[in-house]
Amino acid sequence: MSRPVVALLTDYGPGSEHVGALHAVIARACPEADRIDLAHDIPPGDVRRGAVVLARLAPLVPAGATLLAVVDPGVGGGRRGVAIALRAGGALIGPDNGLLVLAADRLGAARALALAAPPDAAATFHGRDVFAPAVAALAAGAELMGQPVELSDLVRPEVPPPLAVPGRLEATVLGADRFGNVELLAWPEDLERAGLRPGDPVAVAPAGGGAAHPATVARAFSDLPLGGLLVYLDGSGAVALAVNGGDAARLLGAMPGGALAISRAR
Amino acid sequence: MSRPVVALLTDYGPGSEHVGALHAVIARACPEADRIDLAHDIPPGDVRRGAVVLARLAPLVPAGATLLAVVDPGVGGGRRGVAIALRAGGALIGPDNGLLVLAADRLGAARALALAAPPDAAATFHGRDVFAPAVAALAAGAELMGQPVELSDLVRPEVPPPLAVPGRLEATVLGADRFGNVELLAWPEDLERAGLRPGDPVAVAPAGGGAAHPATVARAFSDLPLGGLLVYLDGSGAVALAVNGGDAARLLGAMPGGALAISRAR
Amino acid sequence: MSRPVVALLTDYGPGSEHVGALHAVIARACPEADRIDLAHDIPPGDVRRGAVVLARLAPLVPAGATLLAVVDPGVGGGRRGVAIALRAGGALIGPDNGLLVLAADRLGAARALALAAPPDAAATFHGRDVFAPAVAALAAGAELMGQPVELSDLVRPEVPPPLAVPGRLEATVLGADRFGNVELLAWPEDLERAGLRPGDPVAVAPAGGGAAHPATVARAFSDLPLGGLLVYLDGSGAVALAVNGGDAARLLGAMPGGALAISRAR
Repeated sequence: MSRPVVALLTDYGPGSEHVGALHAVIARACPEADRIDLAHDIPPGDVRRGAVVLARLAPLVPAGATLLAVVDPGVGGGRRGVAIALRAGGALIGPDNGLLVLAADRLGAARALALAAPPDAAATFHGRDVFAPAVAALAAGAELMGQPVELSDLVRPEVPPPLAVPGRLEATVLGADRFGNVELLAWPEDLERAGLRPGDPVAVAPAGGGAAHPATVARAFSDLPLGGLLVYLDGSGAVALAVNGGDAARLLGAMPGGALAISRAR
Repeated sequence: MSRPVVALLTDYGPGSEHVGALHAVIARACPEADRIDLAHDIPPGDVRRGAVVLARLAPLVPAGATLLAVVDPGVGGGRRGVAIALRAGGALIGPDNGLLVLAADRLGAARALALAAPPDAAATFHGRDVFAPAVAALAAGAELMGQPVELSDLVRPEVPPPLAVPGRLEATVLGADRFGNVELLAWPEDLERAGLRPGDPVAVAPAGGGAAHPATVARAFSDLPLGGLLVYLDGSGAVALAVNGGDAARLLGAMPGGALAISRAR
Repeated sequence: MSRPVVALLTDYGPGSEHVGALHAVIARACPEADRIDLAHDIPPGDVRRGAVVLARLAPLVPAGATLLAVVDPGVGGGRRGVAIALRAGGALIGPDNGLLVLAADRLGAARALALAAPPDAAATFHGRDVFAPAVAALAAGAELMGQPVELSDLVRPEVPPPLAVPGRLEATVLGADRFGNVELLAWPEDLERAGLRPGDPVAVAPAGGGAAHPATVARAFSDLPLGGLLVYLDGSGAVALAVNGGDAARLLGAMPGGALAISRAR
């Protein structure tokens, strides 16, 4: 039989002691677990970004894995902790603040239960004191205890739908990666509704108005000359912006939560 | 029997080739070891920060583990390398510059010995050439060889004690994390000696004088409105400062080694 | 028998979701593999830096391991993917853009074959969709399929040779690490050809002319007073520049691809 798998996603920062604490707690309680770091560079407190990233990584993780996710600006306040059991086995564990439900939608949730914080849990570190112990216990084969929670009662993240009309697509910026590639909350069908196809010249500007940058709808970075701005589908299947060999986030001044408009160039 | 555990803490930087070299060396010499990254974002050369972080993570690591710690500005100079065997099994390995002794205090040291650098060790990379091989050898079941060192002869880090008088707590800044939360070298008993309790309004200022910021003693970030500055006990049990949804280190201009004063507001 | 080993080097960024995707894909297809993170902080698109770092880490990795390297600014364009089987067992897998061949030189290549991208591979994420599946398949014991590639046809990175004459060494900057230590594309024999030895006073300046900084050839950081600039052999055996307790990259304004001249001080 193969070893249990635990996968972790946080906004704790790569290589930080907070991530180390999760690993240590899990290794202590479930020494045989394979621990996978999914992402630890979610911008601090950006629950929506965490939720979207978790939802696209979760299907890659071995089936039956226990996923621990912590982006938790409300830690120690009223928000509850939850475990969501998945239909195919495994579970999602973390704060009930919208972080888990997109992944649960994707993988298929069976049921959920509330996780009580033990009385000696630090008010600001439920990752170490509440969620990691629960994850390790599950991975080690224990049954989780807690009050049942209706799946429909789980908090959902705010994901503003894109506006697509012929010749124009307006969408919210999810965030940027290390390369400065800007990911939008928009998908291939939105590009299609806007009638934009590879090769089309477009202009990219802040949705509320501002300087427009010429760009091209393309498949890969190298479809454009160095320095060229492209609109493309990124590795996750989302509409994204990149500069070949450059930094689109800086060029566009794109900030998470802002909105960009992609318009057919006249 | 469970696999041997090796845990690593360095200032090499997350995802850096120096960390990769440690992992590769250990995997080669002890393939069955479970390697845990405790922290790799200790500020370059900040031995005190490394020592405090190691001391609080060490008790979370599975008993019997071998801990490798490298924050080593004096590498290649006169400082010696040491292995500290722990009473409960396992060991701490790294430079004898103060990095290991707080963790040794916490876990209970049995004895120490000096680690000689092999003649072909690079003068600036004892992590790879001296400490990682020793760690892997220990994890693989070998006995370490070296000159005995008196525990009382181990170098200790400088940890300035806080000053607490009724209505005022003055303490050294240990450092800040990615959220901008500022950790002080002060603990609950110091807050108590200062008579400061959750709900109390306070002012936070550089200990030597400077702009004071209004703050509140609180339990969790969400006890304050967004943007509010709080004094709280962080996940490690230290007195800390945070801005709910913001960056306290930036607000306060707090630098490691500086000192802050928390005074009851009049 | 010991578990298969997979080692990863990318420019995806430490703790990024792209790294997480590689780990998840490999864990799913080869659950028993030990996954080693060699480095993920290669500067975006810096193929030469990736190639040099891979070549020096590769010999540390357990023999027989499969190495996955992705620094791939041309992804989705014309460049092919390759697997290079090693004479001692194991393989190097990644883009054929120069990233792999220095490591192949070092470890000894047996043969190479081209990796075709499956039709559903994302145009911008061959790491997840092409290379990681190939790595996992190899690690799990499968035979790789693909068109043979002549080893002499593999793309090689540009590594400008240093210029060494008595009293002067001029070399290209490979890059800097987190400590601000600047690594040059020059080696001990170049220092020797320049007749520079530990203890010698030198001046360091941009090769094209500019402000010169006094420095000393030394063995270790602590051979100089705090703040002193030293020329030394770094842990990889390359000629490098460091400031004891400081940041040489900042001091010298050294950028990857730039050139520095080290001249005997008069």
